[in-house]
Amino acid sequence: MNRYETIANNLATQIREGLLPAGARLPSLRHLIAQYGVSQSTVFRAYSLLEQWGLVRAEERAGYFVTKGATVNETVRGEGLATEPRKVDISDLVFSVLESARHADIVPLGSAFPSPQLFPTARLLKSLVAGTRSLTPWNTVEDLPPGNDHLRQQISLRYVGTGMSVSPNEILITNGALEALNLCLMAVTRPGDLVAVESPGFYAALQAIERLDLRAVEIPVDPVSGLDLEALQSALDQHPIRACWFMPNFQNPTGTSLSADKKRALVELLRRREVPLIEDDVYQELHFSRDRPLPAKAFDTQGLVMHCSSFSKTLAPGYRIGWTAAGRFSDKVRRLKLMTTLSACIPAQAGVADYLEHGGYDKHLRSLRSSFQSQLERMETALHRWLPSPVRWVRPTGGYLLWLQLPQSVKAMELHALASARGISIAPGPIFSATHGFQDCIRLNFGHPWDNRFENAIRELAEILDDPSIHG
Amino acid sequence: MNRYETIANNLATQIREGLLPAGARLPSLRHLIAQYGVSQSTVFRAYSLLEQWGLVRAEERAGYFVTKGATVNETVRGEGLATEPRKVDISDLVFSVLESARHADIVPLGSAFPSPQLFPTARLLKSLVAGTRSLTPWNTVEDLPPGNDHLRQQISLRYVGTGMSVSPNEILITNGALEALNLCLMAVTRPGDLVAVESPGFYAALQAIERLDLRAVEIPVDPVSGLDLEALQSALDQHPIRACWFMPNFQNPTGTSLSADKKRALVELLRRREVPLIEDDVYQELHFSRDRPLPAKAFDTQGLVMHCSSFSKTLAPGYRIGWTAAGRFSDKVRRLKLMTTLSACIPAQAGVADYLEHGGYDKHLRSLRSSFQSQLERMETALHRWLPSPVRWVRPTGGYLLWLQLPQSVKAMELHALASARGISIAPGPIFSATHGFQDCIRLNFGHPWDNRFENAIRELAEILDDPSIHG
Repeated sequence: MNRYETIANNLATQIREGLLPAGARLPSLRHLIAQYGVSQSTVFRAYSLLEQWGLVRAEERAGYFVTKGATVNETVRGEGLATEPRKVDISDLVFSVLESARHADIVPLGSAFPSPQLFPTARLLKSLVAGTRSLTPWNTVEDLPPGNDHLRQQISLRYVGTGMSVSPNEILITNGALEALNLCLMAVTRPGDLVAVESPGFYAALQAIERLDLRAVEIPVDPVSGLDLEALQSALDQHPIRACWFMPNFQNPTGTSLSADKKRALVELLRRREVPLIEDDVYQELHFSRDRPLPAKAFDTQGLVMHCSSFSKTLAPGYRIGWTAAGRFSDKVRRLKLMTTLSACIPAQAGVADYLEHGGYDKHLRSLRSSFQSQLERMETALHRWLPSPVRWVRPTGGYLLWLQLPQSVKAMELHALASARGISIAPGPIFSATHGFQDCIRLNFGHPWDNRFENAIRELAEILDDPSIHG
Repeated sequence: MNRYETIANNLATQIREGLLPAGARLPSLRHLIAQYGVSQSTVFRAYSLLEQWGLVRAEERAGYFVTKGATVNETVRGEGLATEPRKVDISDLVFSVLESARHADIVPLGSAFPSPQLFPTARLLKSLVAGTRSLTPWNTVEDLPPGNDHLRQQISLRYVGTGMSVSPNEILITNGALEALNLCLMAVTRPGDLVAVESPGFYAALQAIERLDLRAVEIPVDPVSGLDLEALQSALDQHPIRACWFMPNFQNPTGTSLSADKKRALVELLRRREVPLIEDDVYQELHFSRDRPLPAKAFDTQGLVMHCSSFSKTLAPGYRIGWTAAGRFSDKVRRLKLMTTLSACIPAQAGVADYLEHGGYDKHLRSLRSSFQSQLERMETALHRWLPSPVRWVRPTGGYLLWLQLPQSVKAMELHALASARGISIAPGPIFSATHGFQDCIRLNFGHPWDNRFENAIRELAEILDDPSIHG
């Protein structure tokens, strides 16, 4: 990626997030030269690229100004109100989308996983062998929930790395974060209960609500500032909400995060009502800024936050090792684990523990984050190059998912069908809400090394967007 | 074990099962000499042992006759009637018992697992490495449910070994049989539904029913002939039973099996009413007779039987690899798996597949079965030696669990508490029924190499049985 592309991308982000609103003048030539330490011609090429993308227009002798409609608009920002409680009926839709994204020869823009090629498979196998050798036969009996002691200590140490203190005794090892989240939800609800989720939000939360005969209240997520706390507060006032299932860091699908202040306010809001928070934090380690963001759990003094995460998105997708630190609900969750799947794979637990101690996890994470960041830049450049200008997004600051707002006439399910037929998967907006809304949004995955397949897939999506049949 | 002990044990089994009823004459000296090819003095020592155990008495010049009360009595045979449907409230009881049995320094007579020392740990690790090496990074995406192809083919081949044809496509890999059973139950019930279970029966079935807000109807299990089909039929006539969860082979806790004719009749009974059967068959491979018993699924032509099993009791307890072949419910179960835990550990799946193909599973199973058989003989001998004569049991023909009927005045929960205090775990009868009945029964585990610890533990149980505080 060239310097001028980076500068253009950065300015584009400020425009879309409204920091440079419609009609605003772009930073001056002199300013950008000083800021980036580049030549005049580099800045001109950046200006020119932004113009080409339809985000700015040049006014002779006056400079470059942001065009109307370049900011992320109201639709993608959500409606500002929680939905009424509703039964959820989404699984068929989700499964039909997931099925179409499963084969290795599909361009996996709709996938929920990063490329498995980015993980240290060989080094991890070494740890799997060392960890398994270190087990006695009795560990198969003793490592029942809460799980392998060594692994729980290593996870506890990672909390220390963000300044948090979470005892190994609070940590329960699960079959990936998905099981942790499901067990936590089961621990704090009964059939018929109301659960607050994000909108748009992770479809697995909606599926769990459907499966357990619960009802969902959807709280809007602003793609810039994250979960709408006012909407949450008013939903809590109106409805007997029994639990929340939120993702404060690098939210799926929008990629947005709550600030530390908002996390603190969220926890305080729930504390006053004694409502437990199931916190999905699987992307925490995938931050692009220097420091790992805190989870909401860092602000919890009451044991109300059930923090769930895993190594599936950062290290070992197939090992199915996740965990929860479930606060005051720990015992209940541990019992549910014993009753439903007994324990996670014991050699895999020992292998991940060995890797965390000896494998160089932090070095691997730095490399992984850097790959995702450069892949994001490549994807943004391709989107600018191929897609018509009314396509908008907010640049995520971590993770590997990009939430795209298409022209309002687009029907994402039709786009999905046509893209599938060309061997390209996308995740259409309607799978992220029980309302089946977000028809004009799609989620793209930049967790794969960028190559011509992806470049061509973006070009093909642009072709499909020209097809009248996908517009309502 | 000496020959005379074997002969005495065999005769004791016939007496307890009622094949030699009270007052019957034992087979003659000449007959036993011919049958076992032993000397006269060996047979006399066997007679004398039976007399010592209180099962027979000598009548001068007439021979040996079975004493009154030597047969397994009505209590252990069950009451012959299904219970009324009831909510289940058993988990606290089960957990308190399981917790007390977890540490390696407890004599694990109450454990549900065989000794991990009997498994080919080193050979399996070799397969784990080979299997994991054979995976491509993409397998972490492609081996989502239904699971690793190679493993499903190997499991399908084991069905062929009993003459059954189960397609790899029907097989779903799960986190042990426990998850398979739970997913199957979830697939065919809704909160409030009635489920028929065995009485006494596996507590995990009762826990699942409690967790999912279902209600249980308990069908009596006769320790000799197994599930009471007449009681089942009348329960089906009286109540809208939505599913059955049964264990036709080496039932937990009684160790009893249904004959092939009874399995056929069971499947036919359920077929007429379109009631699905969740078949727990985790001990199938642990048969003491020459041939592997058929599951009930072998008689199913309608896809109503959901056959569940695993490698946890036969090969690899900590790998957490089980499966279900769920007939017409396969798709639904697969979706539930995707929604709750996504997939089983992928290296572990590949490892077990490699072992099944190259590791010598059948040889290992022969050795395992032979260990269990000889451990059972040692346990029976110790029981005869130390426990007062009104203790009764039916010799299991497979597995590693023995169901013991104590004098009727015994309270098994009190026995459990006193035994725990002495470092001995037992599984008390009341955890095997939502009625909390079977107060005078306990389940013992003979899945561990016999040694002085076990011998002493049986002796200590005898001492505790002399304690008046455990008698009601």
